[in-house]
Amino acid sequence: MGKAKRQMKLNLFLLNAGHHEAAWRYPGTQPERIHDIRYYAQLAQTAEKAKFDSIFLADGLAVGRNIKHGGSYGLEPFTLLSALAAVTERIGLIATVSTTYNEPFHVARKFASLDYISNGRAGWNIVTSGSEQEALNFGAEAHLEHGKRYERAREFLKVATGLWDSWEDGAVVLDRDTGVFADTDKVHVLAHRGETFSVQGPLNIPRPPQGYPVLVQAGSSEAGKAFAAQHAEAVFTAQQTLEDAQRFYADLKSRLAAFGREPEELLILPGICAVIGETESEAKEKEQELNELTVPAYGLQQLKNMLGVDLSSYPLDGPLPELPDIRGINGNKSRFELVSGLARRENLTIRQLIHRLAGARGHRTFAGTAVQVADQLEEWFTNGGSDGFNVMPPVLPEGLDAFAAKVIPELQRRGLFRTEYEGATLRGHFGLRRPANSFASAAPAAR
Amino acid sequence: MGKAKRQMKLNLFLLNAGHHEAAWRYPGTQPERIHDIRYYAQLAQTAEKAKFDSIFLADGLAVGRNIKHGGSYGLEPFTLLSALAAVTERIGLIATVSTTYNEPFHVARKFASLDYISNGRAGWNIVTSGSEQEALNFGAEAHLEHGKRYERAREFLKVATGLWDSWEDGAVVLDRDTGVFADTDKVHVLAHRGETFSVQGPLNIPRPPQGYPVLVQAGSSEAGKAFAAQHAEAVFTAQQTLEDAQRFYADLKSRLAAFGREPEELLILPGICAVIGETESEAKEKEQELNELTVPAYGLQQLKNMLGVDLSSYPLDGPLPELPDIRGINGNKSRFELVSGLARRENLTIRQLIHRLAGARGHRTFAGTAVQVADQLEEWFTNGGSDGFNVMPPVLPEGLDAFAAKVIPELQRRGLFRTEYEGATLRGHFGLRRPANSFASAAPAAR
Repeated sequence: MGKAKRQMKLNLFLLNAGHHEAAWRYPGTQPERIHDIRYYAQLAQTAEKAKFDSIFLADGLAVGRNIKHGGSYGLEPFTLLSALAAVTERIGLIATVSTTYNEPFHVARKFASLDYISNGRAGWNIVTSGSEQEALNFGAEAHLEHGKRYERAREFLKVATGLWDSWEDGAVVLDRDTGVFADTDKVHVLAHRGETFSVQGPLNIPRPPQGYPVLVQAGSSEAGKAFAAQHAEAVFTAQQTLEDAQRFYADLKSRLAAFGREPEELLILPGICAVIGETESEAKEKEQELNELTVPAYGLQQLKNMLGVDLSSYPLDGPLPELPDIRGINGNKSRFELVSGLARRENLTIRQLIHRLAGARGHRTFAGTAVQVADQLEEWFTNGGSDGFNVMPPVLPEGLDAFAAKVIPELQRRGLFRTEYEGATLRGHFGLRRPANSFASAAPAAR
Repeated sequence: MGKAKRQMKLNLFLLNAGHHEAAWRYPGTQPERIHDIRYYAQLAQTAEKAKFDSIFLADGLAVGRNIKHGGSYGLEPFTLLSALAAVTERIGLIATVSTTYNEPFHVARKFASLDYISNGRAGWNIVTSGSEQEALNFGAEAHLEHGKRYERAREFLKVATGLWDSWEDGAVVLDRDTGVFADTDKVHVLAHRGETFSVQGPLNIPRPPQGYPVLVQAGSSEAGKAFAAQHAEAVFTAQQTLEDAQRFYADLKSRLAAFGREPEELLILPGICAVIGETESEAKEKEQELNELTVPAYGLQQLKNMLGVDLSSYPLDGPLPELPDIRGINGNKSRFELVSGLARRENLTIRQLIHRLAGARGHRTFAGTAVQVADQLEEWFTNGGSDGFNVMPPVLPEGLDAFAAKVIPELQRRGLFRTEYEGATLRGHFGLRRPANSFASAAPAAR
């Protein structure tokens, strides 16, 4: 028997009425249903039927500055994904949770709970939060500096994994005859005393089915890559060209050995916003139609968020002014670099840049037929650009329905994507091991 | 048409394998399933079929000291209730969440999300957390003092209600033609700057279907009653005798007028742990069998938690020693009073006290036939002792199945309980108004 053909991993990134910033104005989308669990259940069931590895929810802890023209809000990830766990069977469920505005005990516990509720399908997209407005909702006067946020994230993750390990497998005995509920030799205090956190443990729920939820990361700055190389098992990234994707892929994979990790222990999944048509021209028209529905004031605010510069006093059809140095950016550093580089490389006007970013905020947008989309995905996947993709439909449900009905069968015909789930956990789908328990040998036991 | 007969409200308090501390050792219980969503889905669906008003989950933020002989842990309330929201239609879903170890922005948002996911069925049991061990999981060296916890709870609730109000009804416009997503005149910053919290707002989700989740409270201390009289819409309470229940009921209801509230704006629901048999003697035998399955070491630890005194050096079959003054208690003050009063009044030995508390930790336990149970409930309900009950089955699923199959039809025959849901929200079931929005007139708008 020959070696099985390498197959891509596909994550579905769900966002309100779709990823395009004008999605809510596009015919057929359902922005009035973005707080309706049946809307998400239907999307999740479509994705599961198509054998997606997982569903992913982004998250922020403040209303955006743009609520007049678009909705940067929605249901909270733990509650929404737990509800979806009850109406799906196999698909992974990845929640974004910030390490900057949370307590590790709560987060470890909720992920353990989601992992039980879903029978081993939970994933955690670890973010450090990038906006000043989030700080103001949590009593902070100013946003924590970029480097400090990653220091906090490291300690946070250390505490969370320690808490998940605090119950060894087999700790719950349930011996009805002797009355022994738990083997206390297998339940451990953590007694963490660190720079930021002081957490006693054990966690008040046994070790989750997957050991830890799948650890995901999406920051592509230097600090983000260093963190990912050590801890992440999947990385979402925004890459505009194959060359950039290859550079990022090679760079990140090369960093793993330093932590004793193999290349396949970290999956790299660039975002793709595919506008799908029956013909190429239909797809391009659809993309154009969407772009024309954007509101310039919204796009300018998005650019301000990404570049840290207010461009509203410059002519929309003129070039961008000189941009600040990246070292002054305390938000999403890699997105600043991507957007400023894109404008420079392609010599875009402000309006053109807004349109280029409207589809997926800096992620790659591609308009074409299902076969052309599959070609693009195959090219990146087989040429060292990715291990799969973060699929970001421009409009929902249509963009997902088209991807599921046309692109996925094409990928399956090429042997590039599964036709059946092999397992039932997210670790299983992603080919990741269940992590060893750091307490599994002798360690001080809880009373 | 005459006035409709007053009917009782029934909440189902779910706890692992059942409320009796030996439930997990009792034949037919399923302690191995307490992390299995299908177990809870089945219980919730049984309760919904029986027309219970709501399901309620207690919660703590630390593993108990008793894990050798019993499991004081489980799935986290937001995740579990969100999953149950997806597999039920009408029943209310009440989560316990502490104001001492949480941030109001997170809690307000998760309850709004649960309220959307359940279409208006969320309730919040507001607790201030009573144990030292919880403090140690959140970086605190010592547990916050009782009075301070209530001060924090008041400010926490003020912020949470302000955040729920930060979006007026009708703020989400979704005008596809003009590109106006939200009417920013109806979205408000909170700009709260208080003793403990500093929260800007608005919340990143519009006002939930019920306005606020139903606000529930379960502390019966002086501070607890003062808080409840001002804010709570339902109160869970432990009362051992009708006289005590009447005193509590009259006291709490009399405090409402001071806050401009009507008596029916707060429901009082004492706990009842009913051991149900085909005959009275079968019920008593079952109760005895359960009590004999208790482990004295576990009961002693429970007593230590409630009384603040280690009784393990005293003879089990002897009397209790002198207990400390209540003013020295920094945990659950009203439970201390109830337990010490019970031991004194009935002149119980330590073992007898353990057995009396084993069923429901100080809540009333009653063993009898379904008709006798219904008699007891009717007596309290019609004699100024309660507006309904917090039903705490000693063992699950059996205790719930028996209550649903035998006690509820008996109550329905007497006209004391609904035969169909009248509405679809928890406020509807409880006969509570949707609260007015504090921002509903003119107020400073968010950008």
